[in-house]
Amino acid sequence: MTQWVYGFGSGRAEGRADMRNLLGGKGANLAEMCTLGLPVPPGFTITTEVCTAFYDRGKTYPAELRDQVRSALQRIEQDVGARFGDAANPLLVSVRSGSRASMPGMMDTVLNLGLNDQTVDGLACHSGDARFAYDSYRRFIQMYGNVVLGVDHQNFEDLLETMKEGKGVHLDTELGADDWRHLVRDYKRMVRGELGRDFPEDVDEQLWGAIGAVFGSWMNQRAITYRRLHGIPENWGTAVNVQAMVFGNMGEDCATGVAFTRNPSTGRREFYGEYLVNAQGEDVVAGIRTPQYLTRAARIEGDSELPSMEEAMGGVFAQLVSVYQRLEQHYREMQDIEFTVQKGRLWMLQTRTGKRTAKAALKIAVDMVAEGLIDRREAIRRIEPGSLDQLLHPTLDPKAPRTVLTRGLPASPGAASGIAVFNADEAEDLAAAGKDVILVRIETSPEDIHGMHAARGIVTSRGGMTSHAAVVARGMGRACVCGAGDLRIDYKSHSFSVAGRTVTRGDWVTIDGSTGEVILGTVPTIRPELSGDFATLMAWADELRRMRVRANAETPDDARAARGFGAEGIGLCRTEHMFFNADRIIAMREMILASDSDGRRVALAKLLPMQRRDFVELFQIMAGLPVTIRLLDPPLHEFLPNSDVELAEIAKAANVDMDTLRARASQLHEVNPMLGHRGCRLGITYPEIYEMQARAIFEAAITIARDSGRPVAPEIMIPLIATRRELDLLKALIEEVGRAVMEEAGMRVDYSVGTMIELPRAALVADDIARTAEFFSFGTNDLTQTTFGLSRDDSARFLDTYQKRGILEQDPFVSLDVEGVGQLVRIAVERGRSARPAIKLGICGEHGGDPASIHFCESVGLDYVSCSPYRVPIARLAAAQATIGKK
Amino acid sequence: MTQWVYGFGSGRAEGRADMRNLLGGKGANLAEMCTLGLPVPPGFTITTEVCTAFYDRGKTYPAELRDQVRSALQRIEQDVGARFGDAANPLLVSVRSGSRASMPGMMDTVLNLGLNDQTVDGLACHSGDARFAYDSYRRFIQMYGNVVLGVDHQNFEDLLETMKEGKGVHLDTELGADDWRHLVRDYKRMVRGELGRDFPEDVDEQLWGAIGAVFGSWMNQRAITYRRLHGIPENWGTAVNVQAMVFGNMGEDCATGVAFTRNPSTGRREFYGEYLVNAQGEDVVAGIRTPQYLTRAARIEGDSELPSMEEAMGGVFAQLVSVYQRLEQHYREMQDIEFTVQKGRLWMLQTRTGKRTAKAALKIAVDMVAEGLIDRREAIRRIEPGSLDQLLHPTLDPKAPRTVLTRGLPASPGAASGIAVFNADEAEDLAAAGKDVILVRIETSPEDIHGMHAARGIVTSRGGMTSHAAVVARGMGRACVCGAGDLRIDYKSHSFSVAGRTVTRGDWVTIDGSTGEVILGTVPTIRPELSGDFATLMAWADELRRMRVRANAETPDDARAARGFGAEGIGLCRTEHMFFNADRIIAMREMILASDSDGRRVALAKLLPMQRRDFVELFQIMAGLPVTIRLLDPPLHEFLPNSDVELAEIAKAANVDMDTLRARASQLHEVNPMLGHRGCRLGITYPEIYEMQARAIFEAAITIARDSGRPVAPEIMIPLIATRRELDLLKALIEEVGRAVMEEAGMRVDYSVGTMIELPRAALVADDIARTAEFFSFGTNDLTQTTFGLSRDDSARFLDTYQKRGILEQDPFVSLDVEGVGQLVRIAVERGRSARPAIKLGICGEHGGDPASIHFCESVGLDYVSCSPYRVPIARLAAAQATIGKK
Repeated sequence: MTQWVYGFGSGRAEGRADMRNLLGGKGANLAEMCTLGLPVPPGFTITTEVCTAFYDRGKTYPAELRDQVRSALQRIEQDVGARFGDAANPLLVSVRSGSRASMPGMMDTVLNLGLNDQTVDGLACHSGDARFAYDSYRRFIQMYGNVVLGVDHQNFEDLLETMKEGKGVHLDTELGADDWRHLVRDYKRMVRGELGRDFPEDVDEQLWGAIGAVFGSWMNQRAITYRRLHGIPENWGTAVNVQAMVFGNMGEDCATGVAFTRNPSTGRREFYGEYLVNAQGEDVVAGIRTPQYLTRAARIEGDSELPSMEEAMGGVFAQLVSVYQRLEQHYREMQDIEFTVQKGRLWMLQTRTGKRTAKAALKIAVDMVAEGLIDRREAIRRIEPGSLDQLLHPTLDPKAPRTVLTRGLPASPGAASGIAVFNADEAEDLAAAGKDVILVRIETSPEDIHGMHAARGIVTSRGGMTSHAAVVARGMGRACVCGAGDLRIDYKSHSFSVAGRTVTRGDWVTIDGSTGEVILGTVPTIRPELSGDFATLMAWADELRRMRVRANAETPDDARAARGFGAEGIGLCRTEHMFFNADRIIAMREMILASDSDGRRVALAKLLPMQRRDFVELFQIMAGLPVTIRLLDPPLHEFLPNSDVELAEIAKAANVDMDTLRARASQLHEVNPMLGHRGCRLGITYPEIYEMQARAIFEAAITIARDSGRPVAPEIMIPLIATRRELDLLKALIEEVGRAVMEEAGMRVDYSVGTMIELPRAALVADDIARTAEFFSFGTNDLTQTTFGLSRDDSARFLDTYQKRGILEQDPFVSLDVEGVGQLVRIAVERGRSARPAIKLGICGEHGGDPASIHFCESVGLDYVSCSPYRVPIARLAAAQATIGKK
Repeated sequence: MTQWVYGFGSGRAEGRADMRNLLGGKGANLAEMCTLGLPVPPGFTITTEVCTAFYDRGKTYPAELRDQVRSALQRIEQDVGARFGDAANPLLVSVRSGSRASMPGMMDTVLNLGLNDQTVDGLACHSGDARFAYDSYRRFIQMYGNVVLGVDHQNFEDLLETMKEGKGVHLDTELGADDWRHLVRDYKRMVRGELGRDFPEDVDEQLWGAIGAVFGSWMNQRAITYRRLHGIPENWGTAVNVQAMVFGNMGEDCATGVAFTRNPSTGRREFYGEYLVNAQGEDVVAGIRTPQYLTRAARIEGDSELPSMEEAMGGVFAQLVSVYQRLEQHYREMQDIEFTVQKGRLWMLQTRTGKRTAKAALKIAVDMVAEGLIDRREAIRRIEPGSLDQLLHPTLDPKAPRTVLTRGLPASPGAASGIAVFNADEAEDLAAAGKDVILVRIETSPEDIHGMHAARGIVTSRGGMTSHAAVVARGMGRACVCGAGDLRIDYKSHSFSVAGRTVTRGDWVTIDGSTGEVILGTVPTIRPELSGDFATLMAWADELRRMRVRANAETPDDARAARGFGAEGIGLCRTEHMFFNADRIIAMREMILASDSDGRRVALAKLLPMQRRDFVELFQIMAGLPVTIRLLDPPLHEFLPNSDVELAEIAKAANVDMDTLRARASQLHEVNPMLGHRGCRLGITYPEIYEMQARAIFEAAITIARDSGRPVAPEIMIPLIATRRELDLLKALIEEVGRAVMEEAGMRVDYSVGTMIELPRAALVADDIARTAEFFSFGTNDLTQTTFGLSRDDSARFLDTYQKRGILEQDPFVSLDVEGVGQLVRIAVERGRSARPAIKLGICGEHGGDPASIHFCESVGLDYVSCSPYRVPIARLAAAQATIGKK
């Protein structure tokens, strides 16, 4: 019989930390903590397999589940010495989701489950605190009513407000047991009115309702969005954790808190967290009350008057310190823990790997190696390559003047400028329209995720370092300033005011997530220092990785940036980008609009010295590193003028009349330019273009070899090859030019000729092509377009629907479609090598900077990846991880 | 040591008919005739491998070749009793090309080789005819000078004309030995002037020059064009045949002729041909002198006064008749023979399979089965499926009035109308611009091939049934009228005049290649009768073939035509074609331009009854045969209005203002519509469109089942699937509609849901897709576009260059690219079957009507092909050939 339920409690557990796929992260770690002998309220985990079975079977449970849940519940009852639904001494439980990957705020939770009109009196009696009992009861109805029964949160809030107004009080703490009892009555009446049926009194009905709600929430829109953004497969499912309640809100000797075993923002080795006295856990995470520091040192640094836990609850604090040290040693990883103190007794509610900034991740990894906790390979494995992005982008120039409006918590590092926007939908819309956006909210909730993702940065006026906004922003690598309490945000007028100034929707603001500053307007930025922990870890990665990392670059600036980021060559120099300069575009257009080969040659002769200078400069910067130069690729009409003024310039330069030019321009129009007269097809029909480019390359290489004494061996790359014969003809042409130039110069330079593999046909006949090509570079952008029949320029209007409806897990232009496009890459690699074992293989599509795609490149054995300069460090790290992963 | 040279003569030969790949057609058959004991002048064949080696080695010969040629030449000398270059009794030879496939007029020939200032006197002496000797010599210089040395033909003609004018004579026969001797001197002087060196006196130099010229001509532009048009690979190469000369021009007891063993135009079993007394073979083929009939019966039928060979040379004629009967029995195939009579003695110079019209091919094949010469499978094998095209297209309505301008020879059957054009280049240009063209020439030459191919029909004023124009037109399936001697064609004014009328470039003319009529203007046509031999052979083909043949059709007319041509179902009903009718396009546009789902539903409701009627009618016509209906495929903007008038109509119909419509129309614009928002992507984003179409299909199927009692099981096909999930979602939607419609109607109909395989990705994940798809139909048009990255709409501007430069042997949109696209088809077939063994597989791209592609479809085991109605018979025959070929 399948075991669908795993129990834990009293120092023993059926699960283990390494069973997270089955038990979810939370359940697996609760079991592990139990086994470690740490104080964990007893409970049980319903496995993720139940979730999968639930959806596979049309939302019904496996037959044996009810019996297994019943007996697991009985074990809790025995441990706690209370009975579920017992009027005298009721067991209360929490029901929480817990999936394999952490999905903060995505899943719903129900606390205090097991309360009804009978058991509430038992709780009151047993705890000796009727106010506490009825407060718990109304909290339960509120949470269950909202999460399980779907009653709008606001309905509950309104009744609470009405009661407070009636009583003339402001704080919940000013309400007594009777008030809560009345509120419970009002709540239940309201629920009945909303739903047409009573709030469930039966505790079993409550339990199964909550379990069903957890499984149901796996498929709610927020969860689906989160999974899509984080690449989490739908079929992983979530587990459900049912656990005896402990209470941090039974008085002043009670508390609840969250902590990190190291500082998640800086990575410093210090116990870092927050707690609230006499509160339930959700109060901390929700960011409604401003929490207190854990340690005295932090309190002093934070300049807070509220006592730290170290000061207020010394004994329990000491116990907590020993628990956290035990956990970090055990997991050999920074932990994010949740705890509750019930009447002076510590209970651990959760431990998990703590989220952290990229900077913190680097420091923790490097420190842990120094501490002997982990080795270098493990340190490399621990850094999410994409997270380095946070470190690689500019920060605010400290010397630049700025108008600081206010300062909040430095919740997620990095600087960002954008126009202020006050709701998530608008943030998404404006970002889609190409605007830089800063999302300004009082606080954020899971409903805001899409807007946070679209924004450059997030500001909130409420909530701490572990608030929803802070956790999510760090995870996404967005700059974030939290709890900037001086901001008076008015959603209605789409504005905030602070220090006598008002910022309205559309005004520019800048935030610095590393300092907490909120600044008016924009501020100049400077390039980050890539030293310290970053340099240490990257050096380890470079030692380990097998694949080389090159950059896609054609301008001197890009080439220098690429070298600065550690690129080991240029994998893609797009020569057409060199023609868009104002001083060149006229000659380029003259060439394109020429009516015959002679006319083209005249214009090309003007371009030759410019191209040659380009290559000389590029070769100088790259100083002997390999440089792959792709000959002209795009359809010629991309260079055409848009206005009559521009057309007149060309008419003058080329000495042709306007009508002729217009006719030629319209002749160049194409229905599907992506599949049109471009790439090597231009080289075949207008050989003089590639002749000029080849000449510029050879002459530049000879200049460099002569002047610097450090020869380069250019890799000349032909785009859009579909057949070997195309490459044969063009390679012959290039060789011809090469011979001529070398003869003129009286010296030789080495070079090679290869091809892009960017058409399905090229991949399929790669063995044949490899007989001529000396290298392949996978142009996975175009290969994705043709394999999917999907135009990158046009797909935006339906790709979103495709992701929402689960057709595509990821945008195939961002992460390589291994199942489809990957097959063609694999075929081309195998066939290419079969014909030319030493063939050099690389990738130069934008996937070359995507960690998942880089793993794929390693798995098929490419020699290098090439990506945009800013992604080079990401690629270096991902390549190292891929090497480790493979071994 | 490789044998590069194969000798033949005196009743024995080193070669055989089945060695045509090595010896070329001519060489292999000369050897075979020798072995059969027929009178063949001795000679030898230099193999096609020498040609291949020649080009592989930078135009040099294998080392052993010279020795092998020398000894082969010695064997001829022994047989003939004369010596090559001997001043007293010289051996003269012909040098002819002969490739594996017949390439009429493509390759160059040199006769009388071995003559020089010494040997000419030996020939004069030995033949006793000085005039003959010097005539032969000047012919040799003329031919060799032109073909081998590259001197313009006109230079020789001019000198001959000058001489005739000087002598005041009109005919060559009026010139004597001395005249020819002087002409030889003039020719040689002229050649020296043109080339700066002497005409070669050395006979070995002559021989090797001629051999080199034959090999060189393999790569001349005409040969390359011919190969491209006929799909002949370049690496086949040509052989060279060197053979002792025999002379048909040594007097009145000499003759030369060509004949077919059956009538190549009608297929009738009769000896059919032409001869000329006292002439060399080239005189017949070139069509310069009007030849005489062979048989008395033909002479009487042709109403000729010149005696037939049967009457003039009874003995030799009887010998020729026995030879032709022997050859036809031996080859079991209609032969095209060339012969020469030298002083009353018959010599066979060539036999080969005779070209014939499609009608003749059918009759000959069916007759030969009746005669017991071949079996039905062989009969099927012998018909070129593409040639049926000649029979499937309309002929002139015999009852229609017409203005017959003149009558020529019925050289190639079929009727054609077009504008008169007077040179090949112009014919090609105008045809490329979409015009129907009739090419009018005095006579045609190999330089005109491209224009003949582009034209609908060809008219010449000179030449017989075996003239260049006639042979080539029959091979190409073009209508042709030859030797219409009344036409006075003036190239300069681009016009011809006849019977007092003048037809100028651009005027419409009609020709009837079956009657020889040249008609002014256009004439209505009627559909051909597909009975008799055609029906017999097609019935044999239908018995034999494994694959089914369906048609691509959506209109009732097309569906009826398809059934008439023997289609066994509809393989592709393109529903979008049903929306272009004037009465529907407005509702369609209203749907497209609607801003939301509700707006679309309103418009779709108008379209539903129309679609339903379409399907009812189609199902009625197809009477239970399978019908595959493809849901809407093209990008919506294809339906958009082009003018403001049209836009206003929609604005009115949809009650929306023009600006909104314009904005929506521009929103629909795409950069690469081929790769854009189309196919199933429309079904995913606008499900209401496919819902309406599915409803129309189900309602129509129910109507038919109810009314006719003959249920149809529609095959609903989803286009542009790239992932299984797309199909899952849309199949679910269709099933949902199906359930609803069947419930409303209270009756069930069977149906299946499948997909196009037209994207590389779909082919690669075909196993996954087949878990949902009940059938695959290969959309090889789009699959070719995406696999090659080649837009059909844009590729015209470079595909021609691609074919000329040998990059593509064939237009991949005409004949399936087996090497590339074919791999994907094969992968999809294998994977599709692995997941669903009974999956139905077909092809509905235009390749479904291309014989070569049909062979490929058989080789991968498709269940059916689908093509345009007019190509259905071609597909039926090709499918039968593919079945035979496979076994």
